[in-house]
Amino acid sequence: MSTGAPLSGGAAGPQALRPLLETVLDALAAGAARRGGPLPAGGPGQSAGQVADALRHEGADSLRRLTELLAHGSADPADPACAAHLHCPPLAVAVAADLAVSALNPSQDSWDQAPAATALETALLAELAALVGFHPEESAGVLTSGGTESNLMGLMLARDQVLGGIVELDGVPAGARPRIFASQAAHFSVQRAAALLGLGERAVVPVRVDHELRMDPDALAQAMAEAAWQGATPLAVVATAGTTDTGAVDPLHPAADLAARYGAWLHVDGAYGGGALLSDRLAPLLDGIARADSVSLDWHKLGWQPAAAGVFLARRAETYASLLRRAAYLNPADDEEAGYPSLLGLSLRTTRRADAFKLAVTLRTLGRPGLGRLVDACHDLARATAEAVLAEPALELHCAPILTTVVFRYRPAGGGPAAADRLNAQLRRALLHEGRAVVGRTELPGSGPGRVRLKLTLLNPYATPADTAAVLREVVRAGRELERTAAPG
Amino acid sequence: MSTGAPLSGGAAGPQALRPLLETVLDALAAGAARRGGPLPAGGPGQSAGQVADALRHEGADSLRRLTELLAHGSADPADPACAAHLHCPPLAVAVAADLAVSALNPSQDSWDQAPAATALETALLAELAALVGFHPEESAGVLTSGGTESNLMGLMLARDQVLGGIVELDGVPAGARPRIFASQAAHFSVQRAAALLGLGERAVVPVRVDHELRMDPDALAQAMAEAAWQGATPLAVVATAGTTDTGAVDPLHPAADLAARYGAWLHVDGAYGGGALLSDRLAPLLDGIARADSVSLDWHKLGWQPAAAGVFLARRAETYASLLRRAAYLNPADDEEAGYPSLLGLSLRTTRRADAFKLAVTLRTLGRPGLGRLVDACHDLARATAEAVLAEPALELHCAPILTTVVFRYRPAGGGPAAADRLNAQLRRALLHEGRAVVGRTELPGSGPGRVRLKLTLLNPYATPADTAAVLREVVRAGRELERTAAPG
Repeated sequence: MSTGAPLSGGAAGPQALRPLLETVLDALAAGAARRGGPLPAGGPGQSAGQVADALRHEGADSLRRLTELLAHGSADPADPACAAHLHCPPLAVAVAADLAVSALNPSQDSWDQAPAATALETALLAELAALVGFHPEESAGVLTSGGTESNLMGLMLARDQVLGGIVELDGVPAGARPRIFASQAAHFSVQRAAALLGLGERAVVPVRVDHELRMDPDALAQAMAEAAWQGATPLAVVATAGTTDTGAVDPLHPAADLAARYGAWLHVDGAYGGGALLSDRLAPLLDGIARADSVSLDWHKLGWQPAAAGVFLARRAETYASLLRRAAYLNPADDEEAGYPSLLGLSLRTTRRADAFKLAVTLRTLGRPGLGRLVDACHDLARATAEAVLAEPALELHCAPILTTVVFRYRPAGGGPAAADRLNAQLRRALLHEGRAVVGRTELPGSGPGRVRLKLTLLNPYATPADTAAVLREVVRAGRELERTAAPG
Repeated sequence: MSTGAPLSGGAAGPQALRPLLETVLDALAAGAARRGGPLPAGGPGQSAGQVADALRHEGADSLRRLTELLAHGSADPADPACAAHLHCPPLAVAVAADLAVSALNPSQDSWDQAPAATALETALLAELAALVGFHPEESAGVLTSGGTESNLMGLMLARDQVLGGIVELDGVPAGARPRIFASQAAHFSVQRAAALLGLGERAVVPVRVDHELRMDPDALAQAMAEAAWQGATPLAVVATAGTTDTGAVDPLHPAADLAARYGAWLHVDGAYGGGALLSDRLAPLLDGIARADSVSLDWHKLGWQPAAAGVFLARRAETYASLLRRAAYLNPADDEEAGYPSLLGLSLRTTRRADAFKLAVTLRTLGRPGLGRLVDACHDLARATAEAVLAEPALELHCAPILTTVVFRYRPAGGGPAAADRLNAQLRRALLHEGRAVVGRTELPGSGPGRVRLKLTLLNPYATPADTAAVLREVVRAGRELERTAAPG
């Protein structure tokens, strides 16, 4: 049996892995060649059919067959025409480091499943705390699955710190009427977290944004004053440092001042914009982030890690109490007294992959300056692409790029705002179906038609203005074709 | 710059990866050889020092240097003397498949980040639903980070289904007094989920267990009757299918009957025992699981996947409503109407690694029978190891193995129960510090001394009774040495 299904670990693991990895590399190359573009043509039906066919077979050839299927059927962010989402092309060095993690399978929930990986995560978090401006020895943090989990953790600490430990034991007290203030352009995970935490998503008060989707500090002041006047509990302010669409950073100092005035927690969602901390040019955008009570960072966005590489940081370790539960089999008190550290009380998870490792290897290989150059390359590309949008009369730019996105739309020759929305949504799907480009689509805050926009999220540091110009030409072509063929209205 | 930090994707990715993977394999082998046992000797201080030293250097050699550090500093579950936790040695084929996922970086939160991976996850979940006994087309599910997240999802659906949609919008209603019934031996993530969900951990009513840590159905009936009598809301019954310590499976049919009688949700935590479904011999232990409203399964336990490979399944897709939020940039209504599927509303996460892929490859490579043989091998090993414990007068077996764990303790020559507890905890730490063995430690439910036990969690299908006999000899040796040297009391 041992020869049929060898393990990845131990002294024999690397030898067992070698031919299998060779199979994977060959199948990745074959699948990419067969795809020949940013994604396979044919849309969801064709992709699902190919998957169903492939799953009909069993046997030793499955690794090759299914890997080629996955590669062929991917929307590959390493292709310059795949630029819809905060979905980065990983660095090869990070992927190689992640292989070591898969093979050794450390789990971060107890020291005796991850001796070196436990120490390594702790050291990395201290570095990242310093990057944010927190005191490395007074702060605490953990690797997460991403911004959604990090935002949940920030709001969990906010709930338990502001309402008191009673929530953990007895639930949300009746009549507390907690309120969370977040901009209209904040990530939907804020509402989701409020619902999960038993606060209800109506606890989230949406705060007005400006044209670039930046929170209006006067509107925040007014919303908090009204809530306090009505006897509600201002639980938290969520400031977005890099909205998903425009990359706008909410005014962090005013948010910190207002949170302090009302005794609310300040959580900064830097899932996207946190990557700006790597760049000397862009880091000043995040001035004030060090005043946050907690922060979300995602290195699987502007950090070029394969998912997941989320980070949650709390400025004061003593506020990080909600998860401190003892499990006799994982972190008994006498083991901790004997010097065996445990990260269990820092995470919402129990079993936990050592996602810190790939990030530590990347940081040591490229250094902050090396990663900063990649951030700047994407920022430069966004600015050049915005210029190209401005130069094309069939396109309309929403605002100048702040980080690495370009928000725009195709401008139809005729028809009202509803028709423009429909056409932009359709042309995006047409490009997907043809396998030509993966362009993002979003909607501006507010209600009513005229809000649909297209978006390029530029995370490939090696893509060029010529590449994005080609994508813009595809957008214009698809728009014109749809205008020619579509029924009016 | 492109040569300095190449990407893993695209047509050139495999070539860029090849030398880096070779570096990783060499470093894994070197680290394992230097470790020469289940974990490095020297304890946490030494490990942390080595990590701090290694992190002082930067440069192109970092991948090799840090991978060797990680391998040397691992508790390697592929070593037969590493047998503390539900921490499995991964199959090489699963690790190779996971490399493809890292390299291509599909993200499961929208179709246009993961065309094939979206279809593949949906197909795999239908297979797993059938394995549990759910109707594949009426059920729904998602890949999770593990049992803790899956248990949280089960209790979230319970809360929102039993208390009504009002929780999502307005929070937990005052006066609902929700109650969750789980055995004393249920996983601590049940309490954690209750706290996170705003119900308070006192909402969890602990139900008495028998000697093997199996929930007493009469005690469950009594606890639910008392709660109902007191006007509380019986929200959920959590039945554990495979307790972490003994592998005991709670009586599923009585739990389902009682949940139905009181209108409560039945969640079955099969994070450990779900693997028994792969084995013809052990699957009958889980009879009744098909009556659950929701189920947790973890293929990074009895499934030999690198973390994470958790699965959450809900029997009726229509109960899976809590997470159905629209994000204009991920799952706009018109895209879904046009046939673009979205898994966003199934997960607590947004960005999400395609963990289904490695499991699909493993299932197609080995088949259920092949995986079932690995489960049976671990079960056989547990039974043989229990016999060896019984044959050694210095050891005391807690109960016959049910799945793949052996719970026992070293029996000191003299001293009371508190001294026995202390000695067993100390001897486990001594084995860790010497780098000789990674043995588990737990405490039986209840209070007062005499509850500390040692535990072997046998997940290495290639380990032999001779291997585990050697570990037991180490336990006895360490116990005797401590008895000789320790101060009495």
